[in-house]
Amino acid sequence: MRVRNKPWAKDRIEENPQYVATNPTEWHGKWQQRFEKNQPLHIEVGTGKGRFITEMAKAHPEINYIGIELQMNVLVMALDKLLEEQLPNLQLILVDGQHLTEIFDKGEVSQVYLNFSDPWPKTRHAKRRLTHENFLKLYEQILKPNGQIHFKTDNRGLFEYSLASFSQYGLILNQVWLDLHQSDFEGNIMTEYEEKFSKKGQPIYRVEACFPNK
Amino acid sequence: MRVRNKPWAKDRIEENPQYVATNPTEWHGKWQQRFEKNQPLHIEVGTGKGRFITEMAKAHPEINYIGIELQMNVLVMALDKLLEEQLPNLQLILVDGQHLTEIFDKGEVSQVYLNFSDPWPKTRHAKRRLTHENFLKLYEQILKPNGQIHFKTDNRGLFEYSLASFSQYGLILNQVWLDLHQSDFEGNIMTEYEEKFSKKGQPIYRVEACFPNK
Repeated sequence: MRVRNKPWAKDRIEENPQYVATNPTEWHGKWQQRFEKNQPLHIEVGTGKGRFITEMAKAHPEINYIGIELQMNVLVMALDKLLEEQLPNLQLILVDGQHLTEIFDKGEVSQVYLNFSDPWPKTRHAKRRLTHENFLKLYEQILKPNGQIHFKTDNRGLFEYSLASFSQYGLILNQVWLDLHQSDFEGNIMTEYEEKFSKKGQPIYRVEACFPNK
Repeated sequence: MRVRNKPWAKDRIEENPQYVATNPTEWHGKWQQRFEKNQPLHIEVGTGKGRFITEMAKAHPEINYIGIELQMNVLVMALDKLLEEQLPNLQLILVDGQHLTEIFDKGEVSQVYLNFSDPWPKTRHAKRRLTHENFLKLYEQILKPNGQIHFKTDNRGLFEYSLASFSQYGLILNQVWLDLHQSDFEGNIMTEYEEKFSKKGQPIYRVEACFPNK
């Protein structure tokens, strides 16, 4: 996602350590301490402007959420939403998804959300896709047994790739949607991007997959 | 597929035992004997009017094909194509797919094709879908180790169901196409139905899956 540089982003983030942990590796295995309640932890990798994770946190007070975003100029937009809503069950982290296992302990996470991840369409960039097996390895390590990945995208190529990647890694596809907005799926929370692109009649693809007990 | 009754169909089939085995269970484990050459055997379950299997047999003389169809009035149309082409690597069988293991021995088949199978959209009819686990069990028995299923359909609900069904049964998805005619897949042979429906702009879904070595 390309966004304008925001010179004030760094300060805004540093002024709000109650929502954005300044040194996230310090909380490895202890993330529950940053929430009011000890309850299942769901994370979104690539949280973008934060509408999805903020709305999820509002709709599901029985879940703790963490939104992870690599770009400071984007994360600050999610932070602004969180500051407005003051949600006790939402935290944000400014970090690259590659470092997930440094941030979370084994089994610390119950569910991973991937929403409209960068498709990296060129084959030579396949390793950067958040559904590449290198990332699946990371999710597997931080997820509880039977932990789930919920992934949605409008990008046909990325979805085709991801279904095969999940399957070949050993994930089980619990359910697949090939046109989410024309289905009877309830409680879908749209990302900013999803709303924009689905208006053009683009189908939204979605899958729920889980790591089987070994 | 609903077709007009053809009073002459029974006679036409019985007059051509060189192409349609009259008692298919007699050939259990011995299907190679009905072909000119001993070479890999691919079957299509629900072969319909036979354009796909006839064109495949013409394009791939190095493969033996068997088209399986339940309805006599439909199979006779495939037989007419075969009589016209006189292909030494194509046979037809008039039988219900439920009887596959009575017809084929363990490992006798290298590949199974399913094309535009009846979607049976009602949940209570799920067991009739050719991608239901009860059918996957049959394919697994007659296929060689690492044997493949190639499945295509324009029916979104059936494809969503089938991806999950394959995955939950333990099949590995080798590759998935969510808009076959807009992809770079080469050598696609269209069924009668496929040509008709893709002209309406309907995407064609396709998957190649395999049973892993256990």
